Amino acid sequence: MAARDDNSSGEDRLIARFFKPLAKAPGALGLSDDAAVIKPPVGSDLVLTTDAVVGGVHFFNDDPADKVAQKSLRVNLSDLAAKGAKPLGFLLSLALPESVGDDWLTSFAKGLKADADEFACPLFGGDTVRTPGPVTISVTMFGSVPEGRMVKRAGAKPGDRVMVTGTIGDAALGLQLRKGSEWKLAPAQRDHLLSRYLLPQPRSKLAAAICEHASAAMDVSDGLAGDLGKLARVSGVAAEIAVAKVPLSGAAEAALQSDLALIETILTGGDDFEIVCTARPGHVAPLRAAAAAAGVALTEIGVISAGEGARFVSADGKPIAFKCTSFSHF
Amino acid sequence: MAARDDNSSGEDRLIARFFKPLAKAPGALGLSDDAAVIKPPVGSDLVLTTDAVVGGVHFFNDDPADKVAQKSLRVNLSDLAAKGAKPLGFLLSLALPESVGDDWLTSFAKGLKADADEFACPLFGGDTVRTPGPVTISVTMFGSVPEGRMVKRAGAKPGDRVMVTGTIGDAALGLQLRKGSEWKLAPAQRDHLLSRYLLPQPRSKLAAAICEHASAAMDVSDGLAGDLGKLARVSGVAAEIAVAKVPLSGAAEAALQSDLALIETILTGGDDFEIVCTARPGHVAPLRAAAAAAGVALTEIGVISAGEGARFVSADGKPIAFKCTSFSHF
Repeated sequence: MAARDDNSSGEDRLIARFFKPLAKAPGALGLSDDAAVIKPPVGSDLVLTTDAVVGGVHFFNDDPADKVAQKSLRVNLSDLAAKGAKPLGFLLSLALPESVGDDWLTSFAKGLKADADEFACPLFGGDTVRTPGPVTISVTMFGSVPEGRMVKRAGAKPGDRVMVTGTIGDAALGLQLRKGSEWKLAPAQRDHLLSRYLLPQPRSKLAAAICEHASAAMDVSDGLAGDLGKLARVSGVAAEIAVAKVPLSGAAEAALQSDLALIETILTGGDDFEIVCTARPGHVAPLRAAAAAAGVALTEIGVISAGEGARFVSADGKPIAFKCTSFSHF
Repeated sequence: MAARDDNSSGEDRLIARFFKPLAKAPGALGLSDDAAVIKPPVGSDLVLTTDAVVGGVHFFNDDPADKVAQKSLRVNLSDLAAKGAKPLGFLLSLALPESVGDDWLTSFAKGLKADADEFACPLFGGDTVRTPGPVTISVTMFGSVPEGRMVKRAGAKPGDRVMVTGTIGDAALGLQLRKGSEWKLAPAQRDHLLSRYLLPQPRSKLAAAICEHASAAMDVSDGLAGDLGKLARVSGVAAEIAVAKVPLSGAAEAALQSDLALIETILTGGDDFEIVCTARPGHVAPLRAAAAAAGVALTEIGVISAGEGARFVSADGKPIAFKCTSFSHF
């Protein structure tokens, strides 16, 4: 991505007008070059993650552009937080259909700037291309962890406790509402679920504590059941989860009361962007304290044992069988 | 991007089958995690670049999938080479329409692997998503340069010589052929131009010498005239180019003889993926020697002076005026 100040190229104009103001880091070279240069902090490893969002797939084409921008950053910020990494910056690859005009881009850049500032994660570079398809935003984000300390999915051991941030299922229910589902909800409950789908809340404030105390972690993006199954499998252990302990918002509780079958949507629906992690028993109290200090809800939901995969057990002690443990667009 | 070995999720199956074999670097964690971890070599800076290619825009939807994969890597490898950087690895963000099946993906993965091996640039991670639009491939590539030594666009000074690798205009002419243009060409000439559009040849072998000897450099992707204009502008200098010295392939010469107006396509058409660079007079001979040793053609085409922008001068001493100096999809 590179900017120039004349009007001879449409892409250059876009970059100069909308994106150059976001590229304050010295290594971004004011978007005047073909590449960014990064000097990772001494004694640290670089953590890289990339996630794309596509119009009509990961967001609705009539969602506000600033929220779309924030979502594209936050799904990546969520990955970094779950790895215990501190954000350093991002690269933006943006494919735009001809129907997108300056109004949309103005709002999009405003959303990017808000989150780049809030999460101290500046733009380092990118690429803007035309597409005959929908708006497609691919963000690559990089962060840092102390050397050798990235928190992996692999690392859970028998005896570890399983914990999750925030509440589970809100975004999946919010998506169902967008698609026309109706449950007995107060207007504020409905708004809560819709906003949780529209705008993820990455748990970046918990990253340092995750790095210090978690034995394994990942962000919950494809549904708690499937994602925890992956963590358990790659760790070579079993996770047993008490469904009654899984934290639900008041809105999700209300939806569930009106249709008990929604428990499957809640546990497998995805788009939560919470962190599920495991910790040795001695690390549970300090991790809880750090979460409380950071203002992030953290709930113990189960325990790791020898075995394989994740088991969700209802209040009567019976394991729940899901039709599909993970959300997948494929 | 994360792989699992069962069949419960389509994305996981894709990753395990097609992409896990490419992720040999330890920091890729076998694509079993949400992020990759990178430890840049001691004493080096990390160089990051991202470029996307879109079906129907940057390649034809019926182009062979292995070549599409190679193109998506090579446009990024070309950026790294021009910055004097050695490739370390890449992240792949892949948006796939439902029409793409396993045959296409098998060929795509084969192309990725061929270039990951040839350019010593392994896959570190990525994301695979559905799109209602065309195949969209966004690659983020990272490489290393000795600390503080990334070659920038800014850096050209009066007296520097301007040089360019390979030949200019082939790919733009190849694209015109694909779109139905006809010139008096031998079959081998036609094939040459078509292949130069289909598959860029990044000048990675010259990266170390560019790092050592160039005062400024960039890859030529949007047309020599516009790109050199950008380099000159950000360096705060003027570049004067002798059009007669710009290196053309035999095929491009033949096309130009059949239609002299093609000089504009050649100099502004883009997709060359050659390196244009400047060097102080004392660095020209060692840079030439390094290029010869690497088997990369390098041609002196002009000189830097005080002033602003790039001027292309024909054999009779008159500056050429272009309708548009740069290719842009916008």
